[in-house]
Amino acid sequence: MRIALLGGTGDIGAGLALRWATDSDHDIVIGSRDPEKARETAAAYEDTLADQGVDRKLTGFANEMAADRADVVVVAVPAYHVTDVMGAVADRLDADTLVISPAVGIASGEHGLHYNPPSAGSVTALVADAAPDGVDVVGAFHNLAADRLADLDTELDADTLVVGNDEGARTRVAELADDITGLRALDAGPVENAAEVESLTPLLINLARYNDDLRDVGVTFE
Amino acid sequence: MRIALLGGTGDIGAGLALRWATDSDHDIVIGSRDPEKARETAAAYEDTLADQGVDRKLTGFANEMAADRADVVVVAVPAYHVTDVMGAVADRLDADTLVISPAVGIASGEHGLHYNPPSAGSVTALVADAAPDGVDVVGAFHNLAADRLADLDTELDADTLVVGNDEGARTRVAELADDITGLRALDAGPVENAAEVESLTPLLINLARYNDDLRDVGVTFE
Repeated sequence: MRIALLGGTGDIGAGLALRWATDSDHDIVIGSRDPEKARETAAAYEDTLADQGVDRKLTGFANEMAADRADVVVVAVPAYHVTDVMGAVADRLDADTLVISPAVGIASGEHGLHYNPPSAGSVTALVADAAPDGVDVVGAFHNLAADRLADLDTELDADTLVVGNDEGARTRVAELADDITGLRALDAGPVENAAEVESLTPLLINLARYNDDLRDVGVTFE
Repeated sequence: MRIALLGGTGDIGAGLALRWATDSDHDIVIGSRDPEKARETAAAYEDTLADQGVDRKLTGFANEMAADRADVVVVAVPAYHVTDVMGAVADRLDADTLVISPAVGIASGEHGLHYNPPSAGSVTALVADAAPDGVDVVGAFHNLAADRLADLDTELDADTLVVGNDEGARTRVAELADDITGLRALDAGPVENAAEVESLTPLLINLARYNDDLRDVGVTFE
């Protein structure tokens, strides 16, 4: 499977790229608004992987080019860039493309971070609204600590929640998550349920702030 | 410590009463609007405990009487009764009383349950607004599956999140949570952070709905 990580130069993109390159055979494409930065970042990820004894080739392109021939497109950009990036790549997506939304709208308060959804109700819903008709959009990978995800020496041992209107698409994304060692996907149902899923991210950051032993905290449901 | 469980005849009240009675020496008082129902329920809990080989006396009173001489008052009533119950007991609370709020505002959607906070921003904030000046209010025990909590044959093995403006009060509630075997308290900071904590409850119920192996699911942060 060819996976394009739009905004793949950012921290969640880095972690997903490194984990999938290590734990699966998926072809990883790094997307960025700046194609030169995308190429340089892909090369830097190759170096990181080589340090781990993993010999993989990653490529880097402008987001539009990265999305063009991908089977899976991960919109790994901050919530406030999602609409622009989806607009830029929409005509590169077809009905076979699976779009994954890991972004969360977050606002800062005095004592913590707070869930701040777009007017669509959730970022997953925003991406679904921006995707061409017939393209499946699934929210996932919201609640992974980016540093832990990108640190290949650390066991993940965490759950991620998969939310989207098409059950088959949720299953495909769950399989992509399960490809990553130490990550377990759970089904959170249709996009209607995305706000509660995305709300977990500010909660995790707040818990890391108020509990000394919970840096880069993940979550497990049992 | 004398702990009064207002609405202690309900499912979260039952679980907390049985667990504290089993795992600690705290004096447990069951409160209800109907004092006769409170007494009968306390006797029924004693029978359940006796079946487990636990010999404990529990008492039952009207909510006002239950709150009157309690060190800790748990407002274990549905979110839409919180304001009435707090109004009924407010003049029984003094500056030494610690009030705990486990309730969550939840609305039903087509595909799942959704966080539906009161206009105060969270139920914890609603209880804090309704408490007399100087009385500490802490949100906790929101995210425990009631059936699992009340089933003394089941290991809890779950975390609960403690949220309130006074750090010392949060520590006291964390200690009360830690008194229950298999329960670990984590600090979520001031009341400002309560919405993200309370949002976990509908999420857990949604996950139980969409994942066959997650009935009565709890959550762990690591």
